[in-house]
Amino acid sequence: MTAPASWLDLPPDHPFGVATLPYGVFATGAGTPRVGVRVGEQVLDVAAVAEADGRVPELAAAFGAATLNPLLSLGRPAWRRARAWLTELLTQPDRRAVVAAHLVPLDRVRLSLPIDVADYVDFYASEYHASNVGRIFRPDSPPLTPNWKHLPIGYHGRAGTVVVSGTEIRRPRGQRRPPGAATPTFGPSQALDIEAELGFVVGQATELGTPVSVDEADEHLFGVVLLNDWSARDIQAWEYVPLGPFLGKSFATSISAWVVPLDALAAARVPVPGQDPEPLPYLRGTKPPQGLDIRCEVELNGTVISRPTYRDMYWSPEQMLAHMTVNGARLRDGDLFASGTISGPRDDSLGCLLELTRNGTQPLRLPDGSTRGYLTDGDRVTLRAWAPGPAGARVGLGEVTGTIVPPR
Amino acid sequence: MTAPASWLDLPPDHPFGVATLPYGVFATGAGTPRVGVRVGEQVLDVAAVAEADGRVPELAAAFGAATLNPLLSLGRPAWRRARAWLTELLTQPDRRAVVAAHLVPLDRVRLSLPIDVADYVDFYASEYHASNVGRIFRPDSPPLTPNWKHLPIGYHGRAGTVVVSGTEIRRPRGQRRPPGAATPTFGPSQALDIEAELGFVVGQATELGTPVSVDEADEHLFGVVLLNDWSARDIQAWEYVPLGPFLGKSFATSISAWVVPLDALAAARVPVPGQDPEPLPYLRGTKPPQGLDIRCEVELNGTVISRPTYRDMYWSPEQMLAHMTVNGARLRDGDLFASGTISGPRDDSLGCLLELTRNGTQPLRLPDGSTRGYLTDGDRVTLRAWAPGPAGARVGLGEVTGTIVPPR
Repeated sequence: MTAPASWLDLPPDHPFGVATLPYGVFATGAGTPRVGVRVGEQVLDVAAVAEADGRVPELAAAFGAATLNPLLSLGRPAWRRARAWLTELLTQPDRRAVVAAHLVPLDRVRLSLPIDVADYVDFYASEYHASNVGRIFRPDSPPLTPNWKHLPIGYHGRAGTVVVSGTEIRRPRGQRRPPGAATPTFGPSQALDIEAELGFVVGQATELGTPVSVDEADEHLFGVVLLNDWSARDIQAWEYVPLGPFLGKSFATSISAWVVPLDALAAARVPVPGQDPEPLPYLRGTKPPQGLDIRCEVELNGTVISRPTYRDMYWSPEQMLAHMTVNGARLRDGDLFASGTISGPRDDSLGCLLELTRNGTQPLRLPDGSTRGYLTDGDRVTLRAWAPGPAGARVGLGEVTGTIVPPR
Repeated sequence: MTAPASWLDLPPDHPFGVATLPYGVFATGAGTPRVGVRVGEQVLDVAAVAEADGRVPELAAAFGAATLNPLLSLGRPAWRRARAWLTELLTQPDRRAVVAAHLVPLDRVRLSLPIDVADYVDFYASEYHASNVGRIFRPDSPPLTPNWKHLPIGYHGRAGTVVVSGTEIRRPRGQRRPPGAATPTFGPSQALDIEAELGFVVGQATELGTPVSVDEADEHLFGVVLLNDWSARDIQAWEYVPLGPFLGKSFATSISAWVVPLDALAAARVPVPGQDPEPLPYLRGTKPPQGLDIRCEVELNGTVISRPTYRDMYWSPEQMLAHMTVNGARLRDGDLFASGTISGPRDDSLGCLLELTRNGTQPLRLPDGSTRGYLTDGDRVTLRAWAPGPAGARVGLGEVTGTIVPPR
């Protein structure tokens, strides 16, 4: 499959060309938020062009909404129609006039949280990350818990503190027990970390009691965001036994403003590295599990400090979704589940400072001569990523960025 | 304070007299769902009586909504006005005519989930429960983890699977590892359990980055529900290390259809049993922590199998709310946090079968001669509770009930 040529004057490897077409929610001036699609350095006002074009009346209400949730509720056949329609608009020269009138420069729009997050689940799907964390947090035990290769470990996070890229990240305060101390102290986290992850946006709600199989999962996977699961390691280490992470994570989770449709990532599907032992039947589909060849960058104050590679992840997105629902848990439009930290086998492919600095004991040196074990107030973290598209095209994921500010 | 006399012909100790006035959402016939208040064995159509009475125009829209969330958003001053107005309606004889026209027999209404649950958090606030579970799940370690008396342990649950009382509970399937086995098997849970809890319904949303102190917490505590946190112990035991409970809990959480305002529980506030060591300052208010004297019953197929006592809980509701937000996590209208299993010191005050039957090893014998380690398909579980109200009145909490059905 080749990427269709566009009448847009974009370089063929532009990350937001017609092979990408990510959805977001934007507003201009005093206007109300509505759905937009990023094309190059512009945003297409989809509701306006749908009205002018007149060929997708069944999608008009969803495009005019202030979140993607109405679009998510329509299901994959509608998602495919929307994408085919957008592709035609941007590649057929005779559509240029109607489209061009509804393109807004990116620097003139405000982007908001694209989805009303229903439930937020965070998985732990990187074997490298889970092993590294196990060695640091539980040095006296095997790095992987006995269940890890049998099921995608996950937990629920706080949906209400998912924020859009660009939102300031306020350093959380909380309890932590200093090494060797008998009792905890309270104060601003001294171990504020990032976690570079992918987030999967779910649509086409299901009914309680109805699991979604691995083979059915793609019907519910609308698209992906880049996600930074900010983590206060000192708070987390003290609180997480026995019921898991809570305040160490629930202060903020940032996602990119753009949701890249799963259909844009067809050329990026790759086999997962391999699963041994073979998972139980409910985690197997008719085809071998497929991961995603997505290359990420973690940038701290302008310096790339890591290049995590999503293709190293152990569990596939479809396996995570099937596992999440196998007990009958229903899906809602706007559910968001994240991969867990994307870490690969190399020192330069680790997705969090906990691993990159060995829990702060081996600080990074930045070009300005400063060092970082964990994040300092004022630090700006940006995650970026791209995937191969059809015929040499490049599919960009919207960046997710956040700057650390001190507690109030 | 004495309970005002009502023109309603209710016995003075009726659990849903004028000292209670719980809110729910009801519909009749083909009508749309709207807010109702339970009075005896009837439901007051609050939106209709507000329109007829004309004195609370600022509350009319919230009363006409299909969930309590708009009412939750108005905050405590509005909640107080609503309760004072309702109390006057039901105690002033000259209001009888306007009210009586809008009372509907309880057996003619359909009750729905009263809140659109934003985030659902489950705490672990009973020292007895946490100790008993620790002994069963981690026999080689001290029963309480080192953090337990320093902070209210909690985790996020699945908001999308919170259901209203009466909803059938489908037995979940999942992975569990049989005792002594090296690898897991898959199938319907063989250890389906209840957890008798209180749930606290939150209103008056806050902004990200703004903790709510113990002293401020009551401004955000709208009321309480009875909550059954159904648990698949075999799934939970295999999955929960290291990131906490997930599929062992996320298949269903039942709450009562009625939300009892915190203002109805003023006479039930009692000191917590005692906290040693003294908690960190952010968990202390200007007054000593107050629990709730709420007496619960767990009924299985018509037989009361336990009488958990909420006054035995270690952490206060205000401490849980302050802890949940101390990292800056925002509150949303419709947030729900639960106490964790209510267990007291006695064998007949334990709030789950895991404790009552010592993980199934000491089954209960029911009057029909059958035994239960855990729940069997067809079992019907009902939680009930009441608290002392003013001057000998009794404040009832709506029951929460569910019947186990087999997996699809």
